[in-house]
Amino acid sequence: MGKPHSDSKVTGLTGGEDEFSSNIEDARQATGEERVRAFMKITADEKDLSKRNWMTFILPHLELLSSDTSDSAHPKVLFRHSVKPEHCNTLGNMHGGCTATLFDFCTSSVLALVSRPGFWAFLGVSRTLNVTYLRPAPCDETVVIECEIVQVGKKLCTLRGVMRRESDGTLLATCEHGKVNTDPPVGKL
Amino acid sequence: MGKPHSDSKVTGLTGGEDEFSSNIEDARQATGEERVRAFMKITADEKDLSKRNWMTFILPHLELLSSDTSDSAHPKVLFRHSVKPEHCNTLGNMHGGCTATLFDFCTSSVLALVSRPGFWAFLGVSRTLNVTYLRPAPCDETVVIECEIVQVGKKLCTLRGVMRRESDGTLLATCEHGKVNTDPPVGKL
Amino acid sequence: MGKPHSDSKVTGLTGGEDEFSSNIEDARQATGEERVRAFMKITADEKDLSKRNWMTFILPHLELLSSDTSDSAHPKVLFRHSVKPEHCNTLGNMHGGCTATLFDFCTSSVLALVSRPGFWAFLGVSRTLNVTYLRPAPCDETVVIECEIVQVGKKLCTLRGVMRRESDGTLLATCEHGKVNTDPPVGKL
Amino acid sequence: MGKPHSDSKVTGLTGGEDEFSSNIEDARQATGEERVRAFMKITADEKDLSKRNWMTFILPHLELLSSDTSDSAHPKVLFRHSVKPEHCNTLGNMHGGCTATLFDFCTSSVLALVSRPGFWAFLGVSRTLNVTYLRPAPCDETVVIECEIVQVGKKLCTLRGVMRRESDGTLLATCEHGKVNTDPPVGKL
Repeated sequence: MGKPHSDSKVTGLTGGEDEFSSNIEDARQATGEERVRAFMKITADEKDLSKRNWMTFILPHLELLSSDTSDSAHPKVLFRHSVKPEHCNTLGNMHGGCTATLFDFCTSSVLALVSRPGFWAFLGVSRTLNVTYLRPAPCDETVVIECEIVQVGKKLCTLRGVMRRESDGTLLATCEHGKVNTDPPVGKL
Repeated sequence: MGKPHSDSKVTGLTGGEDEFSSNIEDARQATGEERVRAFMKITADEKDLSKRNWMTFILPHLELLSSDTSDSAHPKVLFRHSVKPEHCNTLGNMHGGCTATLFDFCTSSVLALVSRPGFWAFLGVSRTLNVTYLRPAPCDETVVIECEIVQVGKKLCTLRGVMRRESDGTLLATCEHGKVNTDPPVGKL
Repeated sequence: MGKPHSDSKVTGLTGGEDEFSSNIEDARQATGEERVRAFMKITADEKDLSKRNWMTFILPHLELLSSDTSDSAHPKVLFRHSVKPEHCNTLGNMHGGCTATLFDFCTSSVLALVSRPGFWAFLGVSRTLNVTYLRPAPCDETVVIECEIVQVGKKLCTLRGVMRRESDGTLLATCEHGKVNTDPPVGKL
Repeated sequence: MGKPHSDSKVTGLTGGEDEFSSNIEDARQATGEERVRAFMKITADEKDLSKRNWMTFILPHLELLSSDTSDSAHPKVLFRHSVKPEHCNTLGNMHGGCTATLFDFCTSSVLALVSRPGFWAFLGVSRTLNVTYLRPAPCDETVVIECEIVQVGKKLCTLRGVMRRESDGTLLATCEHGKVNTDPPVGKL
C-alpha cells in the first residue's frame, strides 16, 4: 500500500489512486476504456493480505461491460456486479455500505475516460457521496451499474450512478458523487 | 444468513436485522445500550466464512464507548474505530465506502436505544445515506464516531453521525442517514 | 390560505395541496396532465395579497410544456421558466433558493400524473430536497426543467429534476426530492 | 442589479455578493458580525422594484440575533425569522423552497465571520444545498436558525444550519450547504 500522498494531505479528502497516476506516461497513450481497466487492475492487484484493501472483496465480482463517449459532455461506463454473501447484511441483502462502495468506485472510474495529466489524472478525491436506496439487492442477484459524468470542471466534478436489477432493469439505488481534482499543476509533473 | 425478510421485501429497501428483532422478547428486557451491544454481536457472530458478511472486517475494530439518553429527543452513541489496511484505498487512507459503511452501521445502532416492539425493533432499513468527506483518515489512525437521532417518528427517522480524529477531535466526515421503519404491527408479532 | 391540514400535522412535514385534493372528485375524472395544470392553477390563484404565497412570483413565469407517461415506471413532465429579476441574487443570477423552489414545485407536479384517491392525491410532503448547482442561470435566461418519478410507493417517493439552458440544453442544476404520502386511507375520504 | 461577475462565470455556480466584496476595504476594518450585517443590508437595500431580488420578501422578517466565534474552527451565527403568508404554501406552512432559501442565505452569512481578501471575501457560490424537513413551520410561527461552519478551506467549505421552533426549541429542518470560493487571487484585487 503506498504511503499517503502529499496532494491528498493538502486537499484533505479521501480516495485517489497513486499507482494509477504515477503511471501517467502509459495513461497518456491509453484509450479511456484502457484507463478504466487499469484503474480496476491496480486496485485489484493486492494479493498480499498485508496489502488487502477495501475493494478486495468487491473487484473479483465486478466486471466492466462497456463505455460510451458519444456524448462528450456526459461520458458513461457500464458495470455488472454479482452480489455475494460477503457483500450482504445479516438479512441477506446487499449491505448499504457495499452499495455505497460500488457507487464510489464505479462513478470514479468514469473520470478515467476524460483524465489527462493535470486534469483528473488522479481521479480526484470524494467530497460528497449521496446514495438513495429504492429496493433491496438480494444475495446472488446480478446488478448493472450505469455511471456518467454530470459535470466536470478543473476543480470539481459531479458524477451519477444508477444500479439496476440486470434481469428486468428495475432501479435499485441511485447515487450522486461529488469529487475534487487533486492533480498537481502539469508543470510540476 | 437469514432468509430475506418479507417486510423488507414489501418496503423494498436495504438492511434490517432479523435475528436481532426475532429475539424481541429478550430485547424487551434489555437496556438500550444492551440492545446496541446485541446488534453488534449478532452482526459479528458470523465466523463461518460461508456466512461472512459485509461487516466482517469492520466489527473486530469497532468499539462501543458510551451511550447517552439524557436528551430523550436526541439519544446518542459514541464509537471508536481503528483504521486498518483492509479499510483503506490504495493510497493508504480509509476508503470512502468504508466511511459510509461505518456511518450506516453506527447511526443505525442509535435506534436500538429507543426501539421497542412495533417501533424500530428491526432498526429499519436505509432510504438515504449522505456522507461528506472533509479530511482523510490515514491507516492506523483511530477515529471516534458520534451518532445521534435527529428525529424519529413511526414511519421515518433521520440520524446523524460525525467522525473525528480521536487524538485532537478534528472533524473528518459527517453523515445524514434516513431510515424507514419495517416493523410489522405489534398485534401481528 | 387553508388552515393547516391535520394529516400534515401528524406527519410533521412541509407542503401538500389541500384545495387540490379536496377537489378529488374532479381529479378522478381528470387526465394526469389536467391534474398537473390544476395543481399549478390552484397555487397561482391567490390574487388577494393577504393570500399571497411563496409561489406568487414564480408561477407567472413557469409554463408546462409537456408530460410523458410512456414509461409507466418513470412518468415525466417538462416545464419552461423565464428567469426574472425577482428570481435573482444581487449578482444577477437565479438565486439558489429560487432554483430549489422551482425543483420542489416542478418535481412534485409529476406526482399528479399518477395520483389517485389514497395514493398521492395530496401530492405528499417533502422529506428531503437535495440540489446541486453546476452553472449559473443569468437573469433573462430561459430554462427548461425536466422532472421524473424515480420511484413511487405507498408511503415514499423519490423524484428527480434537471434544469437546462433552453438555448443549448446545457445542464445548470440537478435535484433529488424525497416525499412522503399524506393521504388518509381511502375509506375515510 | 450588478452585471454577472466574471469569476462566477468561470466557476459556473450560483450566488456571490459583488457589492459586498467590492466594498472590501470597509470589510477589512469591520468585525465579523458587522460583515454579516453588511451582507444582510446590501441584499435588503433594493427598494426599487426593478431591482427587487429573491430575498426581498425574506429580509424584512429575518433578524440576526448573535454570532459566536469562541470555537475558531466552527464559528456560529443565530438568526430569528417570522413566518408570514408570503413564505407559505397553500396549506399554510412555510414552503420548502422558502426554508431552502433561508438556509442558503443564513449559512452563507457565517462565512462573513472568517472572510478576508482572497479568502471567501465574496462568500463563495453554492455547489450543493441539501435540506431535510422534519416538521412543518406554520404561518405566524417564529423560528430560529442556527448556522455554523463545519469545515472551510481555500477552495471549498461545508456549512450546516438547523431550524428550530423558537417557543420550545423543537427541530423543524436541517441543512448542509457546500460552497466554492470565487475570490480572485489577492494580488489581482
